[in-house]
This record gives sequence, structure tokens and C-alpha cells, in this order.
Amino acid sequence: MERFEPTERTTLKRLPNRGVFDREAVYRILDESFICHVGFIVDGRPFVVPTGYGRKGDNLYIHGSAASRMLRSLARGIEVCVTVTLLDGLVLARSAFHHSMNYRSVMIFGAASLVEDEEERLEALLAISEQVIPGRWDEVRLPNPSELKQTSVLRLPLEEVSAKVRTGPPLDDEEDYALAVWAGEVPLRLTACEPVADPRLPADIPVSHSASHYSKTNGRSLRE
Amino acid sequence: MERFEPTERTTLKRLPNRGVFDREAVYRILDESFICHVGFIVDGRPFVVPTGYGRKGDNLYIHGSAASRMLRSLARGIEVCVTVTLLDGLVLARSAFHHSMNYRSVMIFGAASLVEDEEERLEALLAISEQVIPGRWDEVRLPNPSELKQTSVLRLPLEEVSAKVRTGPPLDDEEDYALAVWAGEVPLRLTACEPVADPRLPADIPVSHSASHYSKTNGRSLRE
Repeated sequence: MERFEPTERTTLKRLPNRGVFDREAVYRILDESFICHVGFIVDGRPFVVPTGYGRKGDNLYIHGSAASRMLRSLARGIEVCVTVTLLDGLVLARSAFHHSMNYRSVMIFGAASLVEDEEERLEALLAISEQVIPGRWDEVRLPNPSELKQTSVLRLPLEEVSAKVRTGPPLDDEEDYALAVWAGEVPLRLTACEPVADPRLPADIPVSHSASHYSKTNGRSLRE
Repeated sequence: MERFEPTERTTLKRLPNRGVFDREAVYRILDESFICHVGFIVDGRPFVVPTGYGRKGDNLYIHGSAASRMLRSLARGIEVCVTVTLLDGLVLARSAFHHSMNYRSVMIFGAASLVEDEEERLEALLAISEQVIPGRWDEVRLPNPSELKQTSVLRLPLEEVSAKVRTGPPLDDEEDYALAVWAGEVPLRLTACEPVADPRLPADIPVSHSASHYSKTNGRSLRE
């Protein structure tokens, strides 16, 4: 399926031209970030929790302590809405009313389930690690059985998904273009700074490739 | 009230030392960002939508088209969870298991209500504008009655609120400190780039102060 089928929840009621349903375009947005906001319901009330994620094929994976309230709630198979937002810039119009932001956001609806298969669990943990900081997995001590036991991995299939994108300059009312007001965009980027060594790190251990490479690159463009 | 009273929803079950309830500390986090993720329930299913916000006193304000699904849903006074997340860095431990992120996040629970008073509506719109880009309000054409009519403003009182903060180096298992693995933090910052003029802007209009100032400053530290 090259396009996500729009549903009642994923159909944009207003500004439908901002909607994106092409699967590859949606995956490019997901692959450029690594933080999502997970919405779920406990006792009839909404919760929104930020967490890291990884995409592998047509699944999104999140992980956490097996003891966490969120992981335990989600593992029961309750409905979730996972939203990923990339903020690309502030859009400055000539009128206050037409100010906006350039962004790319993805909403995923569905039910997550606990990954039980040990091979898929390890692949998911690797996918999350690679999404946050490529190459790091090969530099570190890998999880031991006790650590794996403390970790829950959840799989959310990418089935009911839509993206919303705004790009470009402001759109002012035609008569406002005559105003002597500067208009345009202030682009925003998530940027990595120079790595900071752990105070307990011996001085003769050089910065690892994953960290030094990351520090020289926009955290996003690294994955583009 | 100098501290938010912890409730069932805002009490951290795990890692309680990451919890922050001091009102001023929570407000500093809120004031450093301008994007939140709003969680709410429609027909028994969770939705999470990113949007801008402004804080003024003990209220958080959001705005949007009076026609939007989210604004219409929230204006009914349903329960929301608004989460604000600042990502400060990647925490690279010697073991895969102890990798983490440094972050500051705030969760606000409650019910929003539609602001009807015209004076409060304007003050809220100004607060949102100032939170996104300080000084811009004074440079632009202000909303006319028709635009104001198309805009809904919602107020969410800051009553049931908590923050969660992680800072500092990785915390590895004691025996792993002997490994020859680089460990530390890759700091992340939201950075503003040089402003890009609207293609329809006459060449003789200089970049406005709000935009040029913003471009030279970390979008966050501007509000610190």
C-alpha cells in the first residue's frame, strides 16, 4: 500500500491541502525525528508522554521500563495516538492573524502490543538506538539478560496514519502586501553542540565516532 | 501557592527524584518553549495535536480557528493533558541500557474553557505572540473584528501540573566505568537561522527587529 487510506480520524477537515498520505513521505518525516508524544487514556482521562522511538518497516517501536505506568497501560492494547512533530520555522506575516509555523507532523492511531519474540525485541532496541544516534549500538556494551528482562518493547503498526505539512512564505491578505512590514520565515533547526565528556571518563578515551559525527551535523539532516 | 500539590496523576511512580513541583521552576520551563502537545479524547479515542501556546500568570492559553475540530472539542470543557517538552541532549552511557536523554517536560491536566471576554482574548493573543516571537506584535497589523471572530481562545488554568527533569552525565553500572567506551552528553539546541524574506517583500524593507534578533539567538535562551 503506497498511500495510507484516510479515515474519519485522519481526514483533515480544514486546510486539506496540508494533508500528506504518501507512505514514503510520511516515513521520511518519522525517520527525521526520534521523539514522539504518546497519547493514551487511563481511567477515562488523557495522558501525553514524550518518549524516544524507532521505525522499522511498517512498525513503530517504543521501549521503556517494564515497570512504567505508560508501558504497562499500553501493553494492554489500549488505543493510542502517537504524534511526531518537526518544527521547521516561524512564519512571519504582515498581519498578526496570518502568522503561522512551518512544520511537519505525523499522527499514528492504533493499538500497541508487547513484543515477546526475543529476536524482534533486540531488532527493535537496535532500531530505536539507531534512530536516536546512528552507530552508537556498535560502540557500547549490549544489553545483558537481566537488562532485557527489565525492558518492555511495544510495537505499533503503521496503518492509520496521516501527516500534516506547512512550508513556504506567509500568505497575507492581498491588501496587506502593500504594508511596510517585514515578512518571511525564521527557520529553526535542532542542532547538536560539541559533545561533553562524562566527568568520570579517563582523559585518554577519544570522543566516539557516533558522538563526534553527531556534533558536527544537524541532528535531523544526519538522518535525511 | 508556591508548589503544585501532587495528585494521583502527577506523582511520579518511578524515578521520583526527577519530579519538579516548584511553581517558578515549572513556569521557567513553560516560558522557554512555545509548542505544546494537546491530548484529548473524542468518541473514546485519544488525539494528540501540536500547537503554539502562551503562558500568562497562572493560565496557559492556546488559540486556533473557531472551526477547528480540536478547538471545538476543547471548548466543551473536556479533560485535556497538555505536555511541553524541551530536549536538552543525548546521554551516551557505556552500556546500551543506560542511554538516556536530558530533557525538561511539563504535564498540565485540567479542562480548558473558551475565553469570551474581549479584553482577555486580546491579552491572550498577545501573550501567545510574545511567547513565540517577542516584539513581533508591535510590528504588524493587529487583528480586525472579522479576524477576531474567526479565532477561538482557550484558557487552561495551571492547577494540576508537574514537571520532570533529567540533567547531567550518564549513570552507568559501577563495573562498566572500566570499559574503554566514550561516554558523555551530546547537547541539543533549537537554533534560529538567518531570516528568509517573503519573495513578495519589496527589497527596501529591512528585516524587522523581532526577526533579526531572533535569528542571532537560540530560540530558547531568548526567553531565559
